[in-house]
This record gives sequence, structure tokens and C-alpha cells, in this order.
Amino acid sequence: MTDRAPVTGNEIDDLVRLLARLPGLGPRSARRAVLQLIKRKESLMAPLVRALQTALERIAPCPVCGNLDTVSPCKLCTDSKRDRSVICVVEDVADLWALERAGVYRGLYHVLGGTLSALDGIGPEDLNVAGLVNRVREDTPGEVILATSATVDGQTTAHYLMDRLAPLGVTITQLAHGVPVGGELDYLDEGTLMAALRSRRPF
Amino acid sequence: MTDRAPVTGNEIDDLVRLLARLPGLGPRSARRAVLQLIKRKESLMAPLVRALQTALERIAPCPVCGNLDTVSPCKLCTDSKRDRSVICVVEDVADLWALERAGVYRGLYHVLGGTLSALDGIGPEDLNVAGLVNRVREDTPGEVILATSATVDGQTTAHYLMDRLAPLGVTITQLAHGVPVGGELDYLDEGTLMAALRSRRPF
Repeated sequence: MTDRAPVTGNEIDDLVRLLARLPGLGPRSARRAVLQLIKRKESLMAPLVRALQTALERIAPCPVCGNLDTVSPCKLCTDSKRDRSVICVVEDVADLWALERAGVYRGLYHVLGGTLSALDGIGPEDLNVAGLVNRVREDTPGEVILATSATVDGQTTAHYLMDRLAPLGVTITQLAHGVPVGGELDYLDEGTLMAALRSRRPF
Repeated sequence: MTDRAPVTGNEIDDLVRLLARLPGLGPRSARRAVLQLIKRKESLMAPLVRALQTALERIAPCPVCGNLDTVSPCKLCTDSKRDRSVICVVEDVADLWALERAGVYRGLYHVLGGTLSALDGIGPEDLNVAGLVNRVREDTPGEVILATSATVDGQTTAHYLMDRLAPLGVTITQLAHGVPVGGELDYLDEGTLMAALRSRRPF
């Protein structure tokens, strides 16, 4: 019974239980978070309630690319400064955010919503593949970058997309494999080392 | 700029920034939490908004003991099954919850709201000390258990309370020091070992 919710009130229990369902928070940290929220009602809890309420009512996936936003289509899809000739295909919105934080990509995105997975029974119809094929057919971008993860499922998905998109005559690329910047060779797996060696460049 | 909030919308930024201020969540896990919340709007986000709204409006410190509850005085203070002859003094509501989870204490509580700390400039007037002295004087419990932490500040606070409460003629006790249940001697500090040895009991 070490991780049971506190007995002081059902409202606190409920809050702890819900917060504990967020990734990164267990029952213990959820309790600490609740105490923190109650201690800082005006400066933290009230703004959080308002932000959540707004998000609940207004944030939805973009019908074009799958990004999350309060406007539809999303701000990235309608940004006239972005390069409309490239679509970068990512698994998840988190990947899109990671690329945006890096600030090195100025084209459009397409969020698949996961990867193909025989084990989990996830097929092409469970992902936003049809939407991608339609976009490529109708908007005829010059390039599609397949930025799925370098995992078995991610690469399976990339190969499947390659097969689906190749007939449309678009250039299809993928992210380079290699040693991560700041990475030590000692800690890298054989696959990465092999890829880095195979794609070696003149110094 | 690695941990900047995503650029996709100010509403998402706001939510990430607020969640990242909770203990246990950094910017990265706050972003994951936001994605999780938006993916599970009906099953997680909506109930969380409701629970937070309720907590915001209804949870407040108990005027008697300092516990957090939606009723005033709190359910522990008004519970007729609890032993009203003992008051257990704790630093924080989290400590009260920990004792309640253990389920071994059936008396009343008093939450100080911290410890004395010369370094942080926290004196007796910053803690709920006057309330404790009044309670002991008016309710004349048979025993006060000083369950502050076994830290320098916690023990300083306990000694201070001892001085304040002794003239009122109440029995004052403190938690036993010793080897934690399940603890290995190898990992214990000298202070704990010394306390455990000094308080040794017949087998």
C-alpha cells in the first residue's frame, strides 16, 4: 500500500491519480506536483487550468499534415515563408517539434501518427499514409524526406512509403546515419558504426 | 535552444511551460505529457481539467492542523474515530500523507509548513508554531510527537518546539532513529548506525 493515494480527500486523490498517468510522473511525483500546485494556486494552478482548458477546446490535428495547432490548417502548413517543395515525413508530432527546435528545416511536414508494426497489428490504414500519397499526387513536391526512426519498425515504414511513393515520380531521401554530434565511438552500436564508416566523407 | 518550447502554437507553448514548472517534469517530459494529453483528450485531459478546477476552487489548508482538504476543518480533524489525545507534528502535508499511507498512526496532526532555517531566514513566525502552542494549551492532548525530519533543520525545529511546549506540561516524544526496515548496514551513514546502536534493544 506504499503508493496508494492519500486519504485526506477524494478530490486530492483524483488529481494525484490523473497526474500520475502523465508520462514522466509516478504516484510519488504526482503527489509532490499536487502539493506544489495547491501551494501556488494563483501563480501556477490557475494558469495551468486555463491553459489546459484552452488546449482542450482549441488544439486539434492539422487535416493536412497532422501537426497539432489551434488553427486549421496549422501555422506551418500556411506559412508562406516555408519551402513548399519538400515534405518531411515523421512518425510523431514530437519528432516534428524536435526538428523545429533544431531550426534547420524550412519545408513542410507530414505526421504519420506512428510506424507500421506487425507485432502491434498496425497497418498502413492505421497511419496517415493515404493522406501523404494524396498530398504528393496533388501538390507534386520535388522531394519527400523519410525521417522515420532508425528502428526496425521505422525503417520498415520508410521502405513501405518508398514503394508507395516511387510510382509518383518524386525524389525520395532519408536522413543520414552516422555518429551523433558529441557522440563517443566507444558507446555506439555496431550498426551505427557500420553506417558511419560506409558513408564516410573526405576530410 | 535545445529546450525551447515548440513553435507550433502559443497555446501549446504555454501549456508545456506551465507543466515544466511541476516538480519532476522538465521541458522534455512536459512536451511528452502535452502530446499524451492531446492524444487522450476525453479520457485524460478533460478529467484532469475538471479535477484541477475542483481543487483550485475547493482545496484549502485546514485552519486547525494545516492539512489540505475540501472541508474545513479537515476530515482528519473531525474524524471521531481518531485519538484526540495525540498530536503528531510534521513539517509538510507530504509527511502527513506518508504517515497516513503507512496506516499506523490514528491520532491528530499539526502541519508546521516547513522547518526553522537560519540560512533561509525562516523563523518561528513563518511556521504554524503559534497555532500548535494554542492547540496544546486549549485541547490539552496527552502527547505531542515531534515528527520533523532527521536533518539539522528538522532537529533544530524539534528542539525549539520542545522548549516552547515543555512549560505546558504535555508529554513530548520523537520518532525513533535506527536502521530503516529493509536497509543494509553497508549503505547507512555513521549517524544512523550510532543512533541504532545506542538505542539497541533485547532480541
